[in-house]
Amino acid sequence: MLAANAAFYDAFEAADLDAMSDCWEHSDRVVCTHPGWSSLRGWAKVAASYYAIFSNPSRQQLILTEPHVTRTGDTAWVVVDENLLGPAMGHTVAALNVFVRHEGGWKIVVHHGSGVVAR
Amino acid sequence: MLAANAAFYDAFEAADLDAMSDCWEHSDRVVCTHPGWSSLRGWAKVAASYYAIFSNPSRQQLILTEPHVTRTGDTAWVVVDENLLGPAMGHTVAALNVFVRHEGGWKIVVHHGSGVVAR
Repeated sequence: MLAANAAFYDAFEAADLDAMSDCWEHSDRVVCTHPGWSSLRGWAKVAASYYAIFSNPSRQQLILTEPHVTRTGDTAWVVVDENLLGPAMGHTVAALNVFVRHEGGWKIVVHHGSGVVAR
Repeated sequence: MLAANAAFYDAFEAADLDAMSDCWEHSDRVVCTHPGWSSLRGWAKVAASYYAIFSNPSRQQLILTEPHVTRTGDTAWVVVDENLLGPAMGHTVAALNVFVRHEGGWKIVVHHGSGVVAR
């Protein structure tokens, strides 16, 4: 399950849309909420958002901290902090990824990220 | 399941800590991410956050829009927009609530809210 989570972040760092596509369930029920964005529902909208993000030539590196996995049957979720390294200073995104087990492995059905405001 | 979700928001609007407590699973695995906050893990920290929020004398009213429920076995989640009404102008929080079925009904195990930035 953590392997599926790692594959998601590897695809993000590599800006690899095919790899990102492999991580997600392709259905109408998937939801992705990028920091500051409205919730995007359905694989088509989610894929379009990653296409737009990956079209930006600047790549984002991240270091994951505080991963916690919870599993209930064929559903599991990972709560993790994404520490993004920028050219000037970094910032942290609190993230939640929900996975559902398929025959081919765990697929993401929800990703929700929100920027942590420095206090 | 939507009744459990409604109870959560009723407790929030009423700033009723006992009612809020009834909505949540009381365990170390629960996680709550308020908009702009770091993720809080475990019922003790989550309860403390609601105590602090409810100690603020100004009450927040909200109107829920775009609720979508997904269920897989004894786990379910609601994606919903919380439209908060403030004294001057309102704002929208994209929210995700994950529930696990207990004998006594559905209990929240994850709440994640993130402010939607106007574009």
